[in-house]
Amino acid sequence: MAEARLIGVDWGTTSFRAALMDREGEVLDDMTGKDGLLSVVDRDFEGVLDRAIGRWDPACTLPVIASGMVTSRSGWRETAYLPCPAGADELAGALTRLTTAKGRRIAFVTGLSYRHGDGSPDVMRGEETQIAGLGLQGTRLAVMPGTHSKWVRVEDGRITAFRSAMTGDAFAALKDHTVLKLTTADWIPSSEAFATGVWIGAADGGAGLLGKLFRQRAGSLMGDFPANETAERLSGLLIGAEIAEARSFAPDVGGPVIIVGGEALAARYAAALAVLGIVHETAPADAAFAGQFRIARAAGLM
Amino acid sequence: MAEARLIGVDWGTTSFRAALMDREGEVLDDMTGKDGLLSVVDRDFEGVLDRAIGRWDPACTLPVIASGMVTSRSGWRETAYLPCPAGADELAGALTRLTTAKGRRIAFVTGLSYRHGDGSPDVMRGEETQIAGLGLQGTRLAVMPGTHSKWVRVEDGRITAFRSAMTGDAFAALKDHTVLKLTTADWIPSSEAFATGVWIGAADGGAGLLGKLFRQRAGSLMGDFPANETAERLSGLLIGAEIAEARSFAPDVGGPVIIVGGEALAARYAAALAVLGIVHETAPADAAFAGQFRIARAAGLM
Repeated sequence: MAEARLIGVDWGTTSFRAALMDREGEVLDDMTGKDGLLSVVDRDFEGVLDRAIGRWDPACTLPVIASGMVTSRSGWRETAYLPCPAGADELAGALTRLTTAKGRRIAFVTGLSYRHGDGSPDVMRGEETQIAGLGLQGTRLAVMPGTHSKWVRVEDGRITAFRSAMTGDAFAALKDHTVLKLTTADWIPSSEAFATGVWIGAADGGAGLLGKLFRQRAGSLMGDFPANETAERLSGLLIGAEIAEARSFAPDVGGPVIIVGGEALAARYAAALAVLGIVHETAPADAAFAGQFRIARAAGLM
Repeated sequence: MAEARLIGVDWGTTSFRAALMDREGEVLDDMTGKDGLLSVVDRDFEGVLDRAIGRWDPACTLPVIASGMVTSRSGWRETAYLPCPAGADELAGALTRLTTAKGRRIAFVTGLSYRHGDGSPDVMRGEETQIAGLGLQGTRLAVMPGTHSKWVRVEDGRITAFRSAMTGDAFAALKDHTVLKLTTADWIPSSEAFATGVWIGAADGGAGLLGKLFRQRAGSLMGDFPANETAERLSGLLIGAEIAEARSFAPDVGGPVIIVGGEALAARYAAALAVLGIVHETAPADAAFAGQFRIARAAGLM
C-alpha cells in the first residue's frame, strides 16, 4: 500500500465523509459517517473527527483538509467567503489553519461569494472544492443539484460566476407544508408526470411559479391527472423552473452542461435536461476529495 | 327591527361567520365563530350550525345560504365546480339544496372553475360569492389576497376568468420550513424591507423566483441587510412576484385594481401595488353576505 499523505474531510450539515489519500491523491481508504454538523453535541467537532479518522492516523501526523458547511456559522470554524473568481490556487491561499490540542493540523477550505449584475449576492460552501476537483478546461457550465442547487460557470478550472436556486429546500417545504401535502404524501414514481412538470415549470422562462404551484392542486381536484402524481409533477415543475432560470445565467457557454452530484439527484436532473433538449453529461462522483487534494497540494500542505 | 328573511353563512376551513338579513339584504345581526370546517368533530356540521344560528331562527323557518369551503371535499356537502363565466344568476341556478332533520333549508353556493389558455385548470370556492356581492359594472380586475390569492376578471358582475397564486401558503411554508427559518423567526416590521422585496419579486416579470429566494439567505449572510428583515423581504418578494405574474393575466383591463380581503392583507397588497405604481382601490369589507343575498334573491329563496 502506498504511503498515506493527506486526509480529506467533507463535512456537511447532515453528512460526514473522509478519505485517506497518497501523494498522488489516490484514495487509499474512505469512510462515511452519520455525524453531520447538526448532530455534533456540545461543539465537540474535534472528538467526532478523532473517532472518525483516528484509526488512519493515531499519532496525528497527517495533514487534514476539510471542506463543506464545517466553515459555516453552525460549523466548527466560521470563515469569510472568498469572492469569485477563484480556483484551487485562490482557495489554497485562503485556507484557515487550526492545530488541535492533540497536535492534529487541520486546514479549512472556505466558501465562495459572487455578486450578480444587480448587486445581489450569492454564496456556496463545499461546491467550490468539488469544482476544483473536476479540473475542467475551457469555459463550462456545471449544475450541482441539492437543497440549494448551484449553476456554476467555470473558466479553466476557476469559478468565475455562479447562481443558486432554493429548489430542493423549497420542494420539501411546499410538498409537506402547503395544500399540496393532501396529495404529495402518496407519491407514485412516474417519469411521464415528472416530464410534464418540467415542461410546465420551464414555460415562460420559469415565470408564473406561484400560479403553477396552485394549479397542481387545481388539476388534481379537476381530475386532470391522478392525485398521486402530484409529487412527481411538483419535483419536475421546480427543477424545470430552475433550469429555465439558469438559462439566462450563462447563455454564451457552449458544450454539455456538467451534472455534479449524488446519483439519484443527478439522474433526476439528467432527465429534466433531456426533456428540455439540453445536452448534458454527468461528472464522476466524489469530486470533493480530488478537489481537496488539489488545494492541499497548491498550499504545500504535504 | 325589520323582518328577518335570510341567514347567510360564510364557512371556511378555519373560520365561521353568519349574518341575519332582511328583505333588502341589510344585515340585522351577525356573528363570528371559531368553528372552521377543520374543527368540526364527527362531521356534525348541522350541530355546529344550529348552535351558531339557532337563536336567530329556533323554528328553522328562514332559508339559509352557505358559501365557502363548506362545499369542498373536506366540507359538509361537496359540490362540483361551475365553469366560468358565472355571476349571481348562474350561481343561483347551481345551488345544492339540503333540508336537515329539523327542517332547516340550506342552499349551498358552489365554487367556480376556469381553464387557462394552455388548458390548465383553476378553481375557487367562496370568492365567487364575494365578487357577486360587489356588483361591479364594466370590465374590472380584482385581487383577493389570501392563502391562495385570486386575480379575478369581472365583466358586468360576472366572473369571466381568474388566476390563483399559492402566495400565502407558500409564504408560510418557505418562512418556517426552509433555510430562511433561521432568520424569519425574528420578524421586524419594515415597510422599506417589504418594498425592496416587492421590487425584487416583480423583476423580470416574476421569473427567477427560486434564485431570488436563496439570495434572501445569501444577502443576510453577506451583511447586505439585517437578518431580521428577511421575513418582510420574503413577504414582499412573493407578493411582488404574484403581481408581476398577474400583470400578464389581464393586460387589457383598465381602471384601478380592486382589492377584496381582510384589512391586514388588503393593506399589504395596497402597499405592494403602490410600490409598483399600479392604481388600486379597496372594496368594502364583508362582500360575502351581499353576494349571498344577491344569489338567494336570484334563486327565489325568499
